[in-house]
Amino acid sequence: MLKVGLLGAGRIAGVHATAITNNPGSTLVAVSDINAEAAAKLAAQYGAEARSTEAILNDPAIDAVLIATSTDTHSDLIERATDAGKAVLCEKPVDLSLARAQACQKVVANNGKPVMIGFNRRFDPNFAALKTALDKGEIGKAELLSITSFDPAPPPVTYIKVSGGLFRDMMIHDFDMANFLMGSAPVTVSAVGTSIVDPAIGGAGDVDTAVVTLTYADGRIAVIKNSRRAVYGYDQRVELLGSEGLLQAQNMLENTVVKSTTAGVTGAKPTYFFLERYMPAYSAEWAAFVAAVNAGTALPVTLDDGVAALAMAEAATQSAKSGLPVALASILG
Amino acid sequence: MLKVGLLGAGRIAGVHATAITNNPGSTLVAVSDINAEAAAKLAAQYGAEARSTEAILNDPAIDAVLIATSTDTHSDLIERATDAGKAVLCEKPVDLSLARAQACQKVVANNGKPVMIGFNRRFDPNFAALKTALDKGEIGKAELLSITSFDPAPPPVTYIKVSGGLFRDMMIHDFDMANFLMGSAPVTVSAVGTSIVDPAIGGAGDVDTAVVTLTYADGRIAVIKNSRRAVYGYDQRVELLGSEGLLQAQNMLENTVVKSTTAGVTGAKPTYFFLERYMPAYSAEWAAFVAAVNAGTALPVTLDDGVAALAMAEAATQSAKSGLPVALASILG
Amino acid sequence: MLKVGLLGAGRIAGVHATAITNNPGSTLVAVSDINAEAAAKLAAQYGAEARSTEAILNDPAIDAVLIATSTDTHSDLIERATDAGKAVLCEKPVDLSLARAQACQKVVANNGKPVMIGFNRRFDPNFAALKTALDKGEIGKAELLSITSFDPAPPPVTYIKVSGGLFRDMMIHDFDMANFLMGSAPVTVSAVGTSIVDPAIGGAGDVDTAVVTLTYADGRIAVIKNSRRAVYGYDQRVELLGSEGLLQAQNMLENTVVKSTTAGVTGAKPTYFFLERYMPAYSAEWAAFVAAVNAGTALPVTLDDGVAALAMAEAATQSAKSGLPVALASILG
Amino acid sequence: MLKVGLLGAGRIAGVHATAITNNPGSTLVAVSDINAEAAAKLAAQYGAEARSTEAILNDPAIDAVLIATSTDTHSDLIERATDAGKAVLCEKPVDLSLARAQACQKVVANNGKPVMIGFNRRFDPNFAALKTALDKGEIGKAELLSITSFDPAPPPVTYIKVSGGLFRDMMIHDFDMANFLMGSAPVTVSAVGTSIVDPAIGGAGDVDTAVVTLTYADGRIAVIKNSRRAVYGYDQRVELLGSEGLLQAQNMLENTVVKSTTAGVTGAKPTYFFLERYMPAYSAEWAAFVAAVNAGTALPVTLDDGVAALAMAEAATQSAKSGLPVALASILG
Repeated sequence: MLKVGLLGAGRIAGVHATAITNNPGSTLVAVSDINAEAAAKLAAQYGAEARSTEAILNDPAIDAVLIATSTDTHSDLIERATDAGKAVLCEKPVDLSLARAQACQKVVANNGKPVMIGFNRRFDPNFAALKTALDKGEIGKAELLSITSFDPAPPPVTYIKVSGGLFRDMMIHDFDMANFLMGSAPVTVSAVGTSIVDPAIGGAGDVDTAVVTLTYADGRIAVIKNSRRAVYGYDQRVELLGSEGLLQAQNMLENTVVKSTTAGVTGAKPTYFFLERYMPAYSAEWAAFVAAVNAGTALPVTLDDGVAALAMAEAATQSAKSGLPVALASILG
Repeated sequence: MLKVGLLGAGRIAGVHATAITNNPGSTLVAVSDINAEAAAKLAAQYGAEARSTEAILNDPAIDAVLIATSTDTHSDLIERATDAGKAVLCEKPVDLSLARAQACQKVVANNGKPVMIGFNRRFDPNFAALKTALDKGEIGKAELLSITSFDPAPPPVTYIKVSGGLFRDMMIHDFDMANFLMGSAPVTVSAVGTSIVDPAIGGAGDVDTAVVTLTYADGRIAVIKNSRRAVYGYDQRVELLGSEGLLQAQNMLENTVVKSTTAGVTGAKPTYFFLERYMPAYSAEWAAFVAAVNAGTALPVTLDDGVAALAMAEAATQSAKSGLPVALASILG
Repeated sequence: MLKVGLLGAGRIAGVHATAITNNPGSTLVAVSDINAEAAAKLAAQYGAEARSTEAILNDPAIDAVLIATSTDTHSDLIERATDAGKAVLCEKPVDLSLARAQACQKVVANNGKPVMIGFNRRFDPNFAALKTALDKGEIGKAELLSITSFDPAPPPVTYIKVSGGLFRDMMIHDFDMANFLMGSAPVTVSAVGTSIVDPAIGGAGDVDTAVVTLTYADGRIAVIKNSRRAVYGYDQRVELLGSEGLLQAQNMLENTVVKSTTAGVTGAKPTYFFLERYMPAYSAEWAAFVAAVNAGTALPVTLDDGVAALAMAEAATQSAKSGLPVALASILG
Repeated sequence: MLKVGLLGAGRIAGVHATAITNNPGSTLVAVSDINAEAAAKLAAQYGAEARSTEAILNDPAIDAVLIATSTDTHSDLIERATDAGKAVLCEKPVDLSLARAQACQKVVANNGKPVMIGFNRRFDPNFAALKTALDKGEIGKAELLSITSFDPAPPPVTYIKVSGGLFRDMMIHDFDMANFLMGSAPVTVSAVGTSIVDPAIGGAGDVDTAVVTLTYADGRIAVIKNSRRAVYGYDQRVELLGSEGLLQAQNMLENTVVKSTTAGVTGAKPTYFFLERYMPAYSAEWAAFVAAVNAGTALPVTLDDGVAALAMAEAATQSAKSGLPVALASILG
């Protein structure tokens, strides 16, 4: 039974608390948060204790910590937790600064503790099934990947300003999905971005709509499309053309009811946002973490994966500004 | 080159005129109609002559006639045309009277000329593909058949009154589809009907919504659902459960555009009515007739098929009235 | 907080234990089963006590019991539990004997305690959404209902023999769905059944494939199709034609991946069986029970609903044997 | 009645001959081809005469010519035909050389005759319905366009060598579709291409898989994906995200049959290639040409549209080679 400390008590921490509790191989022992009240409330709900982060990291009875705090604390907490001997599952992104993430990577390489980054979409039943079919050779060799990833509505501009920008905050999931499916990093990253949804987002120095093209050493190509606004719901699709066919992972819908009237044939919208769409993915992610930590086997997503995606976000940010393709090697220095 | 006389110049005759003209193996030579003006107009449009029915049947240069006149003339014209040595394609139904149709069957059995009944749905690309998959054993042995067949809007009550009733006029297509797919006639026919769409239809002695259950000697079951009104368009679907799977032939849609908005995900309606849905079927039907007549091979749908469907319509009409199942054998005497 | 005793510790009891525990308004206090080991194991898993049924019913601290024992004990336990002052949620069917269920109905009418029957499908998000759309008038007035309900594989013949037969054991869910959607009981019930899936099922006096047609006083019609075997998975669909459109609740699929190859365009199968398909429905069902009991409001499904569905199963059983329609009034006597 | 001369007697000329003949407002008078036998055969099939191109252009009784010859003859024939006073419908592309096409554009501007370029996809019922919905404001303001356009199999390398390359030969249709839907030309064109399908195509100096990103002055973005090989058939889809929703035009399928077995749920493939998919589009294109010429109104697609798409192909060709974005203005000089 894996004993777990949860760092953070916000909305996504609540999602993880449920997954930890429902998993038969793990128990939620303690919760910390800079907002003590939030920590107390979440802990009470799941029969855990509210403690300080310090107390959690120093408790030898705690085997693992789940880091669900704000992004600017991730690198520090990963370093402290692994130095304290804990296995770590940390929400994405590792950091907004590639350099800081790379420094963290070195610390972890030294202490040798397992760190998993929360790219939950790899565990979505649909994307996972697509990956399985690809690995089984069901469409031959991959050639052209397309990822569509639209949020239902943009966050407040106050959030945009501290988010690190669309490429680091939102598309980072899609960069990891590309790495997951393509199995190797791209050579070049070309981005175009615009603030057509809301000029205020442009005013804050960010884009709200973007297309990134990735090229690979062996000739493969990937395209990622992001928009901060798809009024019909969370649009999360992947499409991969291979030498022997096409794989598509389509949206999950709110229900399966279809209505035919004089106005046409109408079905339900996609599930609204990430909590609705990815709840099964969060559970499966946690189950994979527990299984790997308990068995001492390799984690399915690593800190290296987190750094790799961050490097692509950095390249895309630069490309969108310069209007020129960026070689990923130039970023990784 | 098959030289063809067309008896009838109404709407469905126009459909056939197109199919005859577009087929590289047949030519439309002459058209007749009780409305001379209609015959003249249709003939002119397709480069044919307007003639009397008499003249068409007596012309030794005409190889085949297509009968697209009113139902009450079908049996007579089939007998006259086959006695005159023509190959015949006659619109369904053979007759509203089973006895008259059976008498016609005997005449044709004597003169030995090929007569095909226009059950065009057998040639619909979707139903034909379903039948092919079934015959290839793709779902094992058939067990339970469902046919959904809804018209977009009811015809005028004046038409209802002379139509022979829903079972002979509308469901007869579905009886033939059941025979086509199941490959044998049922043992019992149980019908329920109601005039829930329009009480005036009930007032005219007919039903507008009906369900018929068919049982087969080997334990198979079929269900046919008819409604005179599906406001979203012509709903024509078939579904067949077998020992190793399910086959479904779904509706054809007006186009493939899908719109996702806050109101849901909306696609196009089914093609509106039989002319839109079954135009390819009419062409394929005619091509099959031409091919068989030219090759001297068996016709894919026969007068016997027409009589078999009519007997089922007769049984359903009786069952809907009595509320009791009817043995098909009792109808066929 | 509703304190709950669970009677039964089999597979479906486990499903309910999860729903009781996950619901923030209820706690699982005790579990009983004729197999003491099973009760102990299930109780331990959810932090409850294993007790005798007697002890549970006599414990004044227990507010409600969930009856998930074998069918032949349902009526007795409903009577004992309500006499002991408990609110009851009992798995379907109430009883295999209509007379016994009606006697139970009288007892409960006398003691006045709330009893809900576990027709979980009413709480399926898809069927519930269809019902909501219907109630909002989105397709006008209902005219023709079709329910397709196929199991993936037949149960062992040993089970068939004690099941009460397909109509009482399997189609009873669909009878309740018809009552739920149509809002009133039918006038006549006509059934045909066959043992085409497995002759051994026929040898046991039951059918494995059946079609039931229901007629309503106002002219509406419903058709229910059941098969014990759909090799592609659990096929659970509802379709309702109304004066202004059609509503369809389609199957839920294992995932949304679609593969296009030279062999065609292939998607996932329906979720395998009732546990996969109806898990959200079991949770929603329990939530509705807790909410109604806590608020003292009417339960959304009642013992009367259980008896009504059972009467239809009785009528269908008779109809399938006699080959004749059965008036529901003659059953309810 | 528009009297038409057809220049060219190859496969696509045959398609046009059918459309010309079936249209009630036009007649095919004469056919020419460098292969006299082919011209004779096609003419005979449609009741027309085989003549020399010279004779067709000099015949004052001929109102319009349809140019379906090899690409290298298009500009010359457009000039000669318009100088001879004919209305012209010319197959795409105008020319492989942008300069030559622009020279032709000037000649036509001088003689003032109507020239339509055969971008038939604008007349596809699906894309046309998408455009109509967009123009009606059904998804608000367009923001992000995606075009997927995959051929089922690559042409022979001998063809590739004279084709002008993927961007001029294949993607030119998609450039026109972008112009059609976006209503204005892009500012920049960025292309990546690879010969991952067949290295021999790369050996011939061309690519077989490509992604092009277009940016617009008002912040909109478009992405076009091309592959010379989608083994499952002709994949022709358009997707447009707007401020109030998403429009998608999906593939047309060979039929609507769906088969559910233990292997999954399988439907038909997309229609195989352009003749199957776009036959209705060719007819609608011709009908629009006839209507506009007869009415003397503006043609729905013009020679300017042909030059605009060609300029984008030129820009994409340069961008794919240099790896840098190309400003369209730099191409149009």
